[in-house]
Amino acid sequence: MASRVVAQKTVPHLMTLADLTVPQIEQTLRHSLRLKQLSQPWLVPQGSLPAKKVKKLKLPPQSLFNKTIALLFSKRSTRTRLAAETSATLLGGRALFLGRDDIQLGVNETPRDTARVIGGMCQGIFARVGDHSEIEELAKHSPVPVLNALSSLWHPTQILADLLTLHEHAHLFAGKSSPASEYGWQDLRPLTIAYVGDANNILNDMLVTYPRLGHQLRVASPPAYRAPTEVWSRVEELGCDKGIWWGTDPREAVKGADVVVTDTWISMGQEAEKAERLQAFEGYQVTEQLCKEGGANPDWKFMHCLPRKQNEVDDEVFYGPRSLVFPEADNRKWTIMALFDNLFGKWAHGIPPRDQKKEDEDDD
Amino acid sequence: MASRVVAQKTVPHLMTLADLTVPQIEQTLRHSLRLKQLSQPWLVPQGSLPAKKVKKLKLPPQSLFNKTIALLFSKRSTRTRLAAETSATLLGGRALFLGRDDIQLGVNETPRDTARVIGGMCQGIFARVGDHSEIEELAKHSPVPVLNALSSLWHPTQILADLLTLHEHAHLFAGKSSPASEYGWQDLRPLTIAYVGDANNILNDMLVTYPRLGHQLRVASPPAYRAPTEVWSRVEELGCDKGIWWGTDPREAVKGADVVVTDTWISMGQEAEKAERLQAFEGYQVTEQLCKEGGANPDWKFMHCLPRKQNEVDDEVFYGPRSLVFPEADNRKWTIMALFDNLFGKWAHGIPPRDQKKEDEDDD
Amino acid sequence: MASRVVAQKTVPHLMTLADLTVPQIEQTLRHSLRLKQLSQPWLVPQGSLPAKKVKKLKLPPQSLFNKTIALLFSKRSTRTRLAAETSATLLGGRALFLGRDDIQLGVNETPRDTARVIGGMCQGIFARVGDHSEIEELAKHSPVPVLNALSSLWHPTQILADLLTLHEHAHLFAGKSSPASEYGWQDLRPLTIAYVGDANNILNDMLVTYPRLGHQLRVASPPAYRAPTEVWSRVEELGCDKGIWWGTDPREAVKGADVVVTDTWISMGQEAEKAERLQAFEGYQVTEQLCKEGGANPDWKFMHCLPRKQNEVDDEVFYGPRSLVFPEADNRKWTIMALFDNLFGKWAHGIPPRDQKKEDEDDD
Repeated sequence: MASRVVAQKTVPHLMTLADLTVPQIEQTLRHSLRLKQLSQPWLVPQGSLPAKKVKKLKLPPQSLFNKTIALLFSKRSTRTRLAAETSATLLGGRALFLGRDDIQLGVNETPRDTARVIGGMCQGIFARVGDHSEIEELAKHSPVPVLNALSSLWHPTQILADLLTLHEHAHLFAGKSSPASEYGWQDLRPLTIAYVGDANNILNDMLVTYPRLGHQLRVASPPAYRAPTEVWSRVEELGCDKGIWWGTDPREAVKGADVVVTDTWISMGQEAEKAERLQAFEGYQVTEQLCKEGGANPDWKFMHCLPRKQNEVDDEVFYGPRSLVFPEADNRKWTIMALFDNLFGKWAHGIPPRDQKKEDEDDD
Repeated sequence: MASRVVAQKTVPHLMTLADLTVPQIEQTLRHSLRLKQLSQPWLVPQGSLPAKKVKKLKLPPQSLFNKTIALLFSKRSTRTRLAAETSATLLGGRALFLGRDDIQLGVNETPRDTARVIGGMCQGIFARVGDHSEIEELAKHSPVPVLNALSSLWHPTQILADLLTLHEHAHLFAGKSSPASEYGWQDLRPLTIAYVGDANNILNDMLVTYPRLGHQLRVASPPAYRAPTEVWSRVEELGCDKGIWWGTDPREAVKGADVVVTDTWISMGQEAEKAERLQAFEGYQVTEQLCKEGGANPDWKFMHCLPRKQNEVDDEVFYGPRSLVFPEADNRKWTIMALFDNLFGKWAHGIPPRDQKKEDEDDD
Repeated sequence: MASRVVAQKTVPHLMTLADLTVPQIEQTLRHSLRLKQLSQPWLVPQGSLPAKKVKKLKLPPQSLFNKTIALLFSKRSTRTRLAAETSATLLGGRALFLGRDDIQLGVNETPRDTARVIGGMCQGIFARVGDHSEIEELAKHSPVPVLNALSSLWHPTQILADLLTLHEHAHLFAGKSSPASEYGWQDLRPLTIAYVGDANNILNDMLVTYPRLGHQLRVASPPAYRAPTEVWSRVEELGCDKGIWWGTDPREAVKGADVVVTDTWISMGQEAEKAERLQAFEGYQVTEQLCKEGGANPDWKFMHCLPRKQNEVDDEVFYGPRSLVFPEADNRKWTIMALFDNLFGKWAHGIPPRDQKKEDEDDD
């Protein structure tokens, strides 16, 4: 499979979190938090930090210095694009956005030739495609790493952002959470995470990830909406199926939930199915009442990858104190920055612990 | 109103020059000239300055270093966009252009959510919107400063560029103008400025600004074209109404004019009214003859914010020695650079005089 | 003509390689190779070079530091755009892409005004236009250098990339090629270069260049497809006509060919002529068989500027060992980088030999 590092000189790609081991996922999350902390003092208004402190500010790793990352986006995007462009800047490099009007994959040129040409001029490809096979084809022929920015099957960068957000808010969940350690990192107690909505790429990356990290995943999706077999085979391969409950009743799904997650019911390209989908998802709107009736943990928190429509979640929840949606959106940046640094900057899926330690020592 | 600084930690926005005091406007203009002088030696061909001089070159303030400014443009733009992108570079940062095909305000997501998300990843929003209420909504919810790049009501950055151009050419106007002081800054004698054309956002920012700076404003616009009441209430609030003459005859308007200004008769979005507007503005073309007949100051100068159509001004004036239009266009860059430095870099509407002095001392 | 340097302070432009002398072309090629060698160590994954070596890395010339180059592209482009954007970054500057949706030359504003305004804010214009007269008009009025990124008549940057690729592969051609000298530069023995296909802008720049460098050019194009008279007059002016054989039979054209080149049969804007063109070029597909029958040098190599359609060249040749197409695509970057450094950074068409030598000494 194109998405795995095979040997020293092989080009590493990342298609889904299923491609990463648990330690690699955890390193990526810790690295994200570290990059966030290094970056934020640079982003405040000039003059708001004492001059003495400014002089001591450490730059984030400049692993993209002089480098350019191609953003090959066949679908419109706000969050993913902004996260990529702003974090490439912080890593000393540039993200070059190429939209549907700039390049149409496979129209004027085969994906094979496009991958080789872009990879000959840029140092990484962050691709948002339609059918997942398109990004596999890019990865197969690209001389530089390819990172999946969203495909029909997977959305790995979103789930990393969700996980970072949960770790940052670990203290909000009743139960024993670890005291904040170095860099303010907090471990998470095992959570019950409910996903109420469409069985899409977001859910797919949750399915191959959360159970491996010790969390229970409870899914409610209408009968006709099921994860494709290629996703399910990765789920079973990773032993994630034991940690998943799957039904059709949103009330049952939120039972005991610490976190309730939903997403759009109509993804880009599914506009024709709008009426059918609105009907299928009737009763799936996340509300205080639904979660109370279903028996969610009284402290339940809410996540949504945005953009949000009101039918998926009401204003009370979305703009209320349970909502983590905006920190979650902010964290797209820091998790994508960690992946850019690891994958495009260092051709690595997470720095081995020893190097990390050394790097931290260098900080002093 | 969203566009004013209320307290220390409040996010500053700028919607119109009416939001600035006279000293703030003057500081912004002086700062623009200073930034222009600091920047220009960097922009000449390599090798055209002696090596000794190059080594001593001072960088413009790097207040946007590591930062990204979102250009949220729902309307096409050449000058404003180029000015923003090139000056962000000189301030050490990046401008990220998002056009109508990248983000459609309010279509996939509420302006509220968009403002919060963009403001969570970028350090400023420079927005060119349709209806002015859209940018007010952005400013209301944005965690970072919002600067108006043009709205249905206001166009503050254009009038700053016009003012800088007038100051740079102060010696061209008969009468007592101050000798050039530090940085070549020249004060302006009180001018008579005639605006002949459509009562649009350009004119609106002239109305709330020129009279406060001691200039007389003489406006000719066809009967049906009048400033909206919300503009007029700002005009009166600032006591600008006393410095304004308003009529319908272009000849009367240019009487005694030191400067004659016009703009397009058909702004973006008004294409349907083309025939009607061409008729309404018949006789409004700025020409030598019109200004002679009206009794303009024989030394009158011409300004236009571009792009220009021939019906508004003839070639003799537009490309002739009276025309300041290209220096005016160039100054879009330096005035926008000053606003970016002040607003996005320092969260300030102009540096207080004492700090400015200190900064200048640091130059030596 | 707008495209020539007339005196010290005249703005230099580059419309076609016909504007350059042979020494200027050779300097540009050597400079490209030097820039490639300086840049590549910066582009490898972090950690793959020994720290000691990294510390000694020399930056490419930062002649675009603080500067912005406008990419004024009225036609879509992948290679040219990527080459420009990535190499501007390596020169310390920024390329600002303006596509057809950003600026429509001549629609809202005359090319004259657009050239003056863009040239007032940017330090160079890299323009991809339709009719060649458009870029001549830009160059006539621009206060900064204009470089032709492709026009109806010329495509100079492509032929430089082809030449660099041939020099890098000089050892592959039977015959006496010079030993690699400093920077690995290899001279080329006189080659026979066959062009089989449409008489377009690519061919035009070959016509005014290859014969001057000592190479024979053999062209086969259907009867109706001929170089325009304005190209042919440049060919004769430069004495290139003696080095050109022109016929209609592809087999005759490849006789003795060391290199076989083709290009698309249907350029952008010619989609309406598709059926007619497909018929006219029947039998022009480059294949092993065609070259064998025609009597090409058994070691013949293949070049194509991409994107490629299968009717022009079959997979066996295109993806086979004769194909230089991907190194050729990569070299778009390094040759454009040399032109950007020379033209936009230094306002020069090639550094005079003495300065070049001095610069190289500075390396030590």
